[in-house]
Amino acid sequence: MHSLQTRDLKHIWHPCAQMKDYETFPPLVIERAEGSFFYTDDGRPVIDAISSWWCKSLGHCHPDIKKAVQNQLERFEHIIMANTCNSTLVELSEKLAQLTPDLEKVFYADNGSTAVEIALKMSLQYNLQTGRKQKTQFLALENGYHGETTLTLAAGDCELYSAPYSSIMPVIPKITGIPYVSGINDPLWNDMGDDAWNIIQKQLEERKELLSGIVFEPLVQGAGGMKIYSADFLRRLKKWAVANDVHLIADEIMTGFGRTGKYLACEYAGITPDFVCLSKGLTAGWGPMAVVLTSNEIYDAFYDDYFSGKAFMHSNTYCGYPIAAAAALEAMKVYERENTMESVFERSSALLQRMKYVAQETNCLVNFRSLGFVVAADIIDSSTGLPFPKELRIGYQCYKKAIKNGAFLRPLGDTLYFLPPLNTPDGVLDDLAEIAIKSLKEVL
Amino acid sequence: MHSLQTRDLKHIWHPCAQMKDYETFPPLVIERAEGSFFYTDDGRPVIDAISSWWCKSLGHCHPDIKKAVQNQLERFEHIIMANTCNSTLVELSEKLAQLTPDLEKVFYADNGSTAVEIALKMSLQYNLQTGRKQKTQFLALENGYHGETTLTLAAGDCELYSAPYSSIMPVIPKITGIPYVSGINDPLWNDMGDDAWNIIQKQLEERKELLSGIVFEPLVQGAGGMKIYSADFLRRLKKWAVANDVHLIADEIMTGFGRTGKYLACEYAGITPDFVCLSKGLTAGWGPMAVVLTSNEIYDAFYDDYFSGKAFMHSNTYCGYPIAAAAALEAMKVYERENTMESVFERSSALLQRMKYVAQETNCLVNFRSLGFVVAADIIDSSTGLPFPKELRIGYQCYKKAIKNGAFLRPLGDTLYFLPPLNTPDGVLDDLAEIAIKSLKEVL
Repeated sequence: MHSLQTRDLKHIWHPCAQMKDYETFPPLVIERAEGSFFYTDDGRPVIDAISSWWCKSLGHCHPDIKKAVQNQLERFEHIIMANTCNSTLVELSEKLAQLTPDLEKVFYADNGSTAVEIALKMSLQYNLQTGRKQKTQFLALENGYHGETTLTLAAGDCELYSAPYSSIMPVIPKITGIPYVSGINDPLWNDMGDDAWNIIQKQLEERKELLSGIVFEPLVQGAGGMKIYSADFLRRLKKWAVANDVHLIADEIMTGFGRTGKYLACEYAGITPDFVCLSKGLTAGWGPMAVVLTSNEIYDAFYDDYFSGKAFMHSNTYCGYPIAAAAALEAMKVYERENTMESVFERSSALLQRMKYVAQETNCLVNFRSLGFVVAADIIDSSTGLPFPKELRIGYQCYKKAIKNGAFLRPLGDTLYFLPPLNTPDGVLDDLAEIAIKSLKEVL
Repeated sequence: MHSLQTRDLKHIWHPCAQMKDYETFPPLVIERAEGSFFYTDDGRPVIDAISSWWCKSLGHCHPDIKKAVQNQLERFEHIIMANTCNSTLVELSEKLAQLTPDLEKVFYADNGSTAVEIALKMSLQYNLQTGRKQKTQFLALENGYHGETTLTLAAGDCELYSAPYSSIMPVIPKITGIPYVSGINDPLWNDMGDDAWNIIQKQLEERKELLSGIVFEPLVQGAGGMKIYSADFLRRLKKWAVANDVHLIADEIMTGFGRTGKYLACEYAGITPDFVCLSKGLTAGWGPMAVVLTSNEIYDAFYDDYFSGKAFMHSNTYCGYPIAAAAALEAMKVYERENTMESVFERSSALLQRMKYVAQETNCLVNFRSLGFVVAADIIDSSTGLPFPKELRIGYQCYKKAIKNGAFLRPLGDTLYFLPPLNTPDGVLDDLAEIAIKSLKEVL
């Protein structure tokens, strides 16, 4: 083992891992990163096929963002955000407020989990302060994921992540029967059907009196398996929520800023939620920053004389973190200059075609789904047409092979997906497909 | 109002504030920051007397840290931490593992609240995986503060922050009867007395069978009012916890890295907790990063074959954030080069003297307490010797005056405190004292 790997494993407890796995799969030694690639210390390029946990929308070390960060460093790296303002943050906030016409207020946080907690807290407190004291519960979607704090784990539907902590977690029930689709050409995309909706509506009706809000990842559920669902479901959910005085809380942390080919995935459904949580693509992966966008109506319910006790008292030391704010502001300018949204929308089918090519060459992929620059499929045993036994950890074996072959793929269980930087060149996507084929063939 | 202020308030929902207050107290327009100062857009210096929410231990824009961050930008700003390693993070982790001889493992997160959640989650899961399934509860201290997520709000004792969210918060009872002191020369510092301890021990004994851990800010409780308590209490608590198989979770987010004159406040009590949470001073205020330090014994209880299901599956997109890691590594080198710990320890009484001078000149401060580079006192009405009615918001009035007079003071209620960068020059401390005097006199 490389000496840096040995030193790493002596002290570092890596995230989201059984550390024993590192005995036979030591961490890649990264020396630098650029564009769609990491480079290891021996100069080998590795395609960052999942955008470093879905955040590096413009790849690594984008020169314009680097320059914006360097300029910010000449002014200040961080100041307390209470009772201060600065031009970087104001300009960024103005741009964020333009994302949707109805969400004009921006609250800053420093990670995605915290943003979701903020939205849930605001929803509860709004209801408390507007005569809806009985509205103290939340609903979420099956297969959802919203973060790692215990409240967001409760909103999520990943037992693997949450089971040990149930004693200190609230209960947030899950809506089942979500109409999953293969993408925008799926017949269910524009019409999920009344029967399927009625089954969902029944679940909503049962709880509506006590319901403060419903939290969901719009259209693409990430950690739950890169599942894509009908835009029509969101339209119907919005209609129901308005009629029943229930907040919609859109966790666009993964989907926001072009991942689906729009600034917000909610645009596909033509809806405006009451709260939108953003992170990852917000800074294009340049630093921990998250925001919650909300309406003046929500904001106004907290606006009163000090002794009314109606203030939203949340704070994070680094809310409005100027280095990340400078990166975020420049990233939004780059998205405009480089026509990122249009480009992703246009190139989406090309990304899907690469996954289909992998399937054709390996004959082991089913359940294709894609939206924007996300494509996923499930690995099966071609001899039986069934999933492999979990004990084989096929996805994990592919991950190991792919790293050796030059791509950081990291399947979710046995779901293979590509989620590369939005500006990844076609040639790199070709290489990624070939690496996926080679790795799958080596494993199967 | 300055146009940037107007633009700010149109869109930005500031943290920890009743936004209506901004009508008569608009945000300071910050142009740059350096050392112990912000500079407004008209060039006016403002002393950052609370280190931008207690994190800027080495002041703003320290040139060595700036250089380290610039160097990191030449390599990469961020990469996924799962299955990767890099020299910056390894070197930082080695230094962190040296902070205490027994806590050799480092888990990275991106904000303080999350670090506390991680420690609580680890404690629970450890007990679950080592045959102590009944241990599912936590205790915390009265007047504590541990963050803004709902779980950490539950661990905290600030009703102002947590009340609206009780429907989704677990219950974490508070230990009362904490032996508060004025500082290290207080007779209770080294011996809190058996009677006082017995009252606390009774509270512990009642719950010990079900108790997973006790979470506390060691020696200085920040947001709860800059209260300082006996080191002997921590010694006794440690002894009890060991005897009763209960974890100690030290939230050193504010106290760590020199704020008290030691790397860790726990050093005063000579104890090693089971978990130490660090943030703020970790990067010297250069970026959102937090860590949880723990022992090999804890780590080993999660180390097993993958299908044992014992892994700690927590992750944050930006855990190990390289820009912050580069800053943190350099900050630790600066602490050594500039003898920060020794300097703070030596200069602590000089900081206290400034507060006493303010008291002498204004005759309105009582309850002095100090440790390291924290000093606090409560504002009273000198004519009655009693606190002012809350409706007067005396602390808040002082805050407004002090900003006008050149210092960002931000009292906690009517508690005035100085918590400046650890390398603030004597002359600046003199100026700070004069500004505090002037501001108090203008208000009272």
